Amino acid sequence: MASTITNVDQLAINTIRTLSMDAVQKANSGHPGTPMALAPVAYALWTEQLRYDPLHPIWPARDRFVLSCGHASMLLYSMLHLCGVRQVDSLGEPREQLGITLDDIKNFRQLDSPCAGHPEYGAAPGIETTTGPLGQGIGNSVGMALAAKWFSARYDQAGFEMFGYDVYCLCSDGDLMEGVGCEAASLAGHLRLDNLCWIYDDNHITIEGSTDLAFSEDVARRFEALGWNVIKIADANDLSAIDAAFDNFDATRDRPTLIVLRSVIGYGAPNKQNSHAAHGSPLGESEVQLAKQFFGWPTDRPFLVPDEVQAHFADAVGQRGEREYQAWFDRLADYQYKFPELAAELELIWQGNLPGTWNNKIPEFPPGKSMATRSASGKVLNAIAAEVPWLVGGSADLAPSNNTHIDGSASVSAGEFAGRNLHFGVREHGMAAVCNGLSLSGLRPFAGTFFVFTDYMRPSIRLSSIMHLPILYILTHDSIGLGEDGPTHQPVEQLAACRAIPGLIVYRPCDANEVAAGYRATLNLRRPTALILTRQNVPIIDRQRYAPANQAERGGYILWDSEKAPQVILIGTGSEVHLCLEAAEQLSQKRVRVRVVSMPSWELFEMQDKSYRDQVLPISVTARVAVEAGIRQGWDRYIGTSGAFIGMHSFGASAPFEKLYEHFGMTTQAVVAAAQSQFGL
Amino acid sequence: MASTITNVDQLAINTIRTLSMDAVQKANSGHPGTPMALAPVAYALWTEQLRYDPLHPIWPARDRFVLSCGHASMLLYSMLHLCGVRQVDSLGEPREQLGITLDDIKNFRQLDSPCAGHPEYGAAPGIETTTGPLGQGIGNSVGMALAAKWFSARYDQAGFEMFGYDVYCLCSDGDLMEGVGCEAASLAGHLRLDNLCWIYDDNHITIEGSTDLAFSEDVARRFEALGWNVIKIADANDLSAIDAAFDNFDATRDRPTLIVLRSVIGYGAPNKQNSHAAHGSPLGESEVQLAKQFFGWPTDRPFLVPDEVQAHFADAVGQRGEREYQAWFDRLADYQYKFPELAAELELIWQGNLPGTWNNKIPEFPPGKSMATRSASGKVLNAIAAEVPWLVGGSADLAPSNNTHIDGSASVSAGEFAGRNLHFGVREHGMAAVCNGLSLSGLRPFAGTFFVFTDYMRPSIRLSSIMHLPILYILTHDSIGLGEDGPTHQPVEQLAACRAIPGLIVYRPCDANEVAAGYRATLNLRRPTALILTRQNVPIIDRQRYAPANQAERGGYILWDSEKAPQVILIGTGSEVHLCLEAAEQLSQKRVRVRVVSMPSWELFEMQDKSYRDQVLPISVTARVAVEAGIRQGWDRYIGTSGAFIGMHSFGASAPFEKLYEHFGMTTQAVVAAAQSQFGL
Repeated sequence: MASTITNVDQLAINTIRTLSMDAVQKANSGHPGTPMALAPVAYALWTEQLRYDPLHPIWPARDRFVLSCGHASMLLYSMLHLCGVRQVDSLGEPREQLGITLDDIKNFRQLDSPCAGHPEYGAAPGIETTTGPLGQGIGNSVGMALAAKWFSARYDQAGFEMFGYDVYCLCSDGDLMEGVGCEAASLAGHLRLDNLCWIYDDNHITIEGSTDLAFSEDVARRFEALGWNVIKIADANDLSAIDAAFDNFDATRDRPTLIVLRSVIGYGAPNKQNSHAAHGSPLGESEVQLAKQFFGWPTDRPFLVPDEVQAHFADAVGQRGEREYQAWFDRLADYQYKFPELAAELELIWQGNLPGTWNNKIPEFPPGKSMATRSASGKVLNAIAAEVPWLVGGSADLAPSNNTHIDGSASVSAGEFAGRNLHFGVREHGMAAVCNGLSLSGLRPFAGTFFVFTDYMRPSIRLSSIMHLPILYILTHDSIGLGEDGPTHQPVEQLAACRAIPGLIVYRPCDANEVAAGYRATLNLRRPTALILTRQNVPIIDRQRYAPANQAERGGYILWDSEKAPQVILIGTGSEVHLCLEAAEQLSQKRVRVRVVSMPSWELFEMQDKSYRDQVLPISVTARVAVEAGIRQGWDRYIGTSGAFIGMHSFGASAPFEKLYEHFGMTTQAVVAAAQSQFGL
Repeated sequence: MASTITNVDQLAINTIRTLSMDAVQKANSGHPGTPMALAPVAYALWTEQLRYDPLHPIWPARDRFVLSCGHASMLLYSMLHLCGVRQVDSLGEPREQLGITLDDIKNFRQLDSPCAGHPEYGAAPGIETTTGPLGQGIGNSVGMALAAKWFSARYDQAGFEMFGYDVYCLCSDGDLMEGVGCEAASLAGHLRLDNLCWIYDDNHITIEGSTDLAFSEDVARRFEALGWNVIKIADANDLSAIDAAFDNFDATRDRPTLIVLRSVIGYGAPNKQNSHAAHGSPLGESEVQLAKQFFGWPTDRPFLVPDEVQAHFADAVGQRGEREYQAWFDRLADYQYKFPELAAELELIWQGNLPGTWNNKIPEFPPGKSMATRSASGKVLNAIAAEVPWLVGGSADLAPSNNTHIDGSASVSAGEFAGRNLHFGVREHGMAAVCNGLSLSGLRPFAGTFFVFTDYMRPSIRLSSIMHLPILYILTHDSIGLGEDGPTHQPVEQLAACRAIPGLIVYRPCDANEVAAGYRATLNLRRPTALILTRQNVPIIDRQRYAPANQAERGGYILWDSEKAPQVILIGTGSEVHLCLEAAEQLSQKRVRVRVVSMPSWELFEMQDKSYRDQVLPISVTARVAVEAGIRQGWDRYIGTSGAFIGMHSFGASAPFEKLYEHFGMTTQAVVAAAQSQFGL
């Protein structure tokens, strides 16, 4: 060991740095500069501050650490390895093996290594969320901190603090420039989340050059305006200043904390530090060597982890964490004894399950009147909420329109976290990012807005899906059927765009009872769902006359059929199913044999076995008409080469909705004509 | 007239209010509260401040007025009507008719009325941009203000101030909560756009209730931190305070101005003011009557415009505007004489045209080596930039990766606006919103980022398309071909999602010469284009051996064909075209007659006549394989019921890209096998 290494702190910090450099160099791909800069703060956080037990890495009351600047992934992988964080099995029980081995680090950015280019939730314990797209991690962290508050408010009891955990997040200038980050910061300040600490890596460097090129705002002052406690640290290598900042955070009990940490990107690399050259590419062998020399590190032992360092982490993180965990675990045993019902709820939450009764109160809607599917959704949501106390959510300031209010529950506000109605403000993107954090913490969140505004939150919806998070997106005003608000508010391409997201279930029910079926079919899947709902009233279908609504749980089903083999199949979703039924009526009178298929969800339908799908859409019947108030994209799969599509071919317009349906040619008449032309009538 | 109306100011303001109330009431749909609250500031702005000539409503040097809170559209329509803003013909020449007549207002929110639910660009002069989705208008306004600075910097000459115009924007709490608004505000402060004035309607009311529910930040302080001049007005009805604020704005020469205007939503409606009830629904007949009584207004004359008011607007806006316009127009004549070349450029800009030479320097790329299409794009962009001085743009902090730098041009920065390289920071959404504003002002903007991050800016791309703005989105790192950065950075569904946007041209070239063809085909269309480009090198196709690249301008073309009628067609886009060519080679050796179709753009292909399309993809050849490193959605249209698709079925992974292509089964072998299985080999 070179003599310049004077103590174990420095040795440990340089281990993090050199592991990161070596991994990036070996992969010949990655971001070395930020791990080198932030190693001290990560080290201080994990060894002195974070309540984390590497032997019980998914302990529910652990502090969370989020690396929002996900490109610095090697920093996280190094920490998880050095702290000895274990793997867990499918039941969440810890295993002997490390979650991230040294070999995994040597396979950084290679197929099947848990050390992916950016941290991927599920790849190893301690990766609390998938990050990389900037602004998302800080958004998630707000949800995690809010969840901690919510769990405390609902489950902590006198003498039983089960959930007083904190959330720490490292973030970059990019996180703070991204709008979603601004939204999340504003919301965190509003909610006074004093258990949330962001550490801003203020390195003055962006990919294009100096941050001065595009980012000259006074970040500290902005955050003060947002209601945050702001602490500045002049030197990222100053461990005592870092400790003092954490003490300050601990002592601050009325607002979140931002630590502005002045750092030098690529610290220690003599020719590349403090420049973009240290950001997104390997340093190069010779610069790695020079940096190691600067650190007083052997240049001939890549991936070196000195024994003292290993031991130090086991002591500083492992032993401290284990003590904390054991104390909590003992407390839990008492808690289970004294509060068995609450403890049983927690057990379900930690398993990711819903109560067995979750769907018992879902109403059946009698036919004969009309009801907007958004309205039915409000009723079903409330029926489920009555059984699932941790179903919590809200809207981006459209709750009265989205019907997302949980009746009889309070609003969540600063200091009042036990409620179940969240007010996200006009912040769709922040809402979805926060919901990802809530979900990662065990809550079952729902998020409402107008369907067209899914465009505002797509990056977070994508991450819901990448992470398999069962988040319910409640999306109303689903087509030109919203009428007068016009093309900016009328979804046209959003059905196609949402269906495009792998793993997302898109469900567009045709009536109130299909709404209920949608909730039944999707809420217990480990996938996000987008419920697409009408603003306008639609008839409640008489299920005596037509097929039962529970068949909608299969995604597509024969709603109505001719007595003999059909000549033509009309396929509709949502409000357009009623056009299909009316058209079928008229066609039947013309002695055309018609089948009507209601197809609320392509994704659920594709999950059915082939025989069922072929039964609903027999290959032999090529005369088909699809009717949907969206674009054609993707429908060719179901209508085939010769089928017809009645829908939208442009943006919408501003007018009463009945006029718009006429204007854009979505009428019973048009469906009838299209069906007839399918076989040359 | 009731006696409480004491002067023409008040009379005019109440005319705006009552027109708005009446229009919403008649439509039985809309947002009355904000026009009622903001009528005084709109009145003061238009009559005292705005340089606007209703007789020459698209005069290039006019001040711009943007209604970012687009739901308050009746405020804008009332102003345009009362000011007598004229229609213009297709050449931009003013007509006799008003752009918005009283009848149009009476047809508020009806089909074909220019008075749509939200303001729609193109519906009438004076509607400077389409607004409604919150945060977009303020984003556009930053682009407009930046354009004014850019035009000044390039075209103003000593004694010839041609472009010293200002941009005013009314915005709501929703605009300021939206992330895109935060991004735009930060950028405007960074660029010190002192010609930009936002007026924040601080009414304390959101749809869910009080803004306190979700929005408690100190807005004024936040904007100060962003580098803005902030002025507070305690009472939205205080005209002298409003005048003083505008004076303050005029005097502030180093930063943008935010006027925080405390208002009462629905002012004057005794039972609904200051509550959400005045926001998004008609007040109801009786409340309208009560409000009119409060205003001292006749209750029996809906849509009343007193003669004095009409005369007053003609005087205050019309005469002042005409003087300003005439002075400018006289100056322009001199300018044209003294600076004929610059004047000729301006003429082209104002017509929305490019120079005839715009595509003269586009290079041809010799075959034999490989080049990433992003790299080719950088060269073509620069070749065009050399001919089109008003081609201006940049990247969301990824210029070196997106190859969007214009060589030999300066960066745009505060006080230095003549450059052509914009630094948007890590603000994709703000970038696109700003580009919409630049485009609306006559510039030809381009905007670069990683393709996956189109998700961050979809709402603005959608508006580019709704408004037919020829914005070039340069989107690199277009598939799993980016390799190690992993699933968060790898586009999978983005091709489908972008193709879904009506009007947007999506173009994914297979090699450098197809890149050139893409620029040639799209830059002169009045539509936005998304160029989808590889990070990795791809071969430059030998056009002696294969079809010429200019055929790519048709969106899809026969790149290579068997001598006799093909048995199977391989259709590829971008980097996967090379898989098709390799597979074709192998299949030919097996005596399979193959055609390879390169299909960089579905949209351009669909613009071709049917006979061409049928020639490229003959109906008779049903054996087809599409190959694209994205999802299948939409491809069924081209491969038919029986065709095969080789592409992605999930999110990507982190590994070197060659491994990923193998891992996900996108290989020459797979294409060969799929082709063979198409006819049972």
